[in-house]
Amino acid sequence: MDQDTTHSAVPGHRPTVSSVAAMAGVSRQTVSNALNNPERLQPETLKRVLAAIDDSGYVRSAAARQMRTARSSVLAYRLDPIRDGIGGIVLDTFLHTLSAQAEGQGYRVMLYTADSDEAELRQFAALTQTRAVDAFVLVDTHRDDQRYRWLSENGVPYAVFGRPWPGDEETDDDGAHAWIDIDGSAGTAAATAHLLELGHRNIGFIGYLHDGATGDDRRRGWEASMAGAGVPPRQRRALDSSQRDGILEGADAARRLLDAGATAFVCASDSLAVGALSAAGPEAAVVGFDDSPTAAALGLSSVRQPLEEAAGWALGSVLAQIDGAHSTSGTSRLLVPQLVVRASSRPLS
Amino acid sequence: MDQDTTHSAVPGHRPTVSSVAAMAGVSRQTVSNALNNPERLQPETLKRVLAAIDDSGYVRSAAARQMRTARSSVLAYRLDPIRDGIGGIVLDTFLHTLSAQAEGQGYRVMLYTADSDEAELRQFAALTQTRAVDAFVLVDTHRDDQRYRWLSENGVPYAVFGRPWPGDEETDDDGAHAWIDIDGSAGTAAATAHLLELGHRNIGFIGYLHDGATGDDRRRGWEASMAGAGVPPRQRRALDSSQRDGILEGADAARRLLDAGATAFVCASDSLAVGALSAAGPEAAVVGFDDSPTAAALGLSSVRQPLEEAAGWALGSVLAQIDGAHSTSGTSRLLVPQLVVRASSRPLS
Repeated sequence: MDQDTTHSAVPGHRPTVSSVAAMAGVSRQTVSNALNNPERLQPETLKRVLAAIDDSGYVRSAAARQMRTARSSVLAYRLDPIRDGIGGIVLDTFLHTLSAQAEGQGYRVMLYTADSDEAELRQFAALTQTRAVDAFVLVDTHRDDQRYRWLSENGVPYAVFGRPWPGDEETDDDGAHAWIDIDGSAGTAAATAHLLELGHRNIGFIGYLHDGATGDDRRRGWEASMAGAGVPPRQRRALDSSQRDGILEGADAARRLLDAGATAFVCASDSLAVGALSAAGPEAAVVGFDDSPTAAALGLSSVRQPLEEAAGWALGSVLAQIDGAHSTSGTSRLLVPQLVVRASSRPLS
Repeated sequence: MDQDTTHSAVPGHRPTVSSVAAMAGVSRQTVSNALNNPERLQPETLKRVLAAIDDSGYVRSAAARQMRTARSSVLAYRLDPIRDGIGGIVLDTFLHTLSAQAEGQGYRVMLYTADSDEAELRQFAALTQTRAVDAFVLVDTHRDDQRYRWLSENGVPYAVFGRPWPGDEETDDDGAHAWIDIDGSAGTAAATAHLLELGHRNIGFIGYLHDGATGDDRRRGWEASMAGAGVPPRQRRALDSSQRDGILEGADAARRLLDAGATAFVCASDSLAVGALSAAGPEAAVVGFDDSPTAAALGLSSVRQPLEEAAGWALGSVLAQIDGAHSTSGTSRLLVPQLVVRASSRPLS
């Protein structure tokens, strides 16, 4: 409901929500909806109210609202160039979902870029000093991440998609920031159990090195499932391969593990899995990670991250902080991903 | 330079840029930079000035600035979910580049979502009525696009990445909107000429149907090059295949065209090309379109869209309109893409 700062194009006039409502022959609530929640109105009604607003010279600016509420109703998100055409899609999906969900709550997402922590802290300063944004949603966490401390110390609401890193002093110190993450280990454990059920026992793991924590996490699930199935340590070591993330790297790893007797592969990314699929031939079973559109197109089984849920949590967390919740500690969550089974889940022949 | 609306945390005080400058022992320009262009300052200096700003209680809000200038310094961009894990990357790259370039000009990019023209016009109304954004950068144009007329009629600056569609009455009517596009025909003509030079003559075209104008445009370049090389119409028809965009569709098309005698393939997308590459075996030559990270990873030659240039033009166009240029007609441009040659450019054996 609004009776906001108004400016008139005609001197001596001062159009209000009420006078606009009278002009358009609608209720004040309908005028308010036309301004704040236009999607709630029928297109015809919206058109009539907007025409009346135009005719009256009524202006309700975002700036005027912001001056009153001291809020921008904007969340900030760092947009990085996608480096990997297959798995990079994950963060794009997260951003789209976050943006759509935020709109449902009257918020929008503003982008910024930064190629280092230092550059990002300068962006934090610029965006918060001018009150251009109310909160930050951080992704792509890394070891010794400087960002949590800055935001905490400056009282800026934020949520993190990515768990704190093991041994990360920075996050141990403040210890209270809210995060959500995907349980990668549960995902690869489920993929491995699935391949064991299909009769495979020599199940290779094709992991990546780039990002220690995420890569290690995904490796652990395979290791635990294999150990649980009684595959001895020596055999597990022979079936374990880590390299850079990429299609060609996945193909090379699959060839090496085939020589070591592997009949199936659990991969830490769809990029690696696409490579394994091309190198291993039609006999081998392959499961990827991320359930990218590429996996769907190729009939590749893959582990799907629940990104809608992650985005919804991040949004809920920052909105609660904006609304005055003092701390979000204790609300952090680890989401269990889901295995999507496709043609590449071949039984042992 | 700023002596803005200020608010003091301490009643009776009214900190100014000058008093903050004195506290921090820096010039007024340095304080202004800390607020407006923090990236221009050394981190140490920035920290000192921001501390003085905090201590003084000086607040210069984006809302206050916006009330004064009647500008938000924000551009709006519609974010769609990426449907295609390979070629969809193009718009992601465009958005990242646009965002980074806008920041260099003191602007930021705000996202919105919409799943229909109607929904998008409602977003236009909401975003412009509240003056939350100064301009729109539109992509993913389509036949009978309603968006140009709305923005033109409402005097909202906008730029379009995508040319007007042939026979599109809407754009013929106003006829004045600024656009930039990639000359897809020039791209596939260059790809075809390249394969002709490698000794191929039976060069198949693997195109897509989804998006009539873009698909037709890319087909035309191949057709013109083949006709120029003296390949007769009947043979060209046998070598021409259109289907949905996708990896599996590309593989199917390549198999059919191999049966028709093709030794090389010009593809309208990298998705189709990845499929062709997998189906055609190590003898055939393949050129894709979009130069995605997947193309680079697979050693696939591909046509690269000059997205930095397109984003720079779109930004320049809307900034000129915001600064008062009345029309940008006559400034539209068609950019020539560049062929990136990799291992898949195999000579005829």
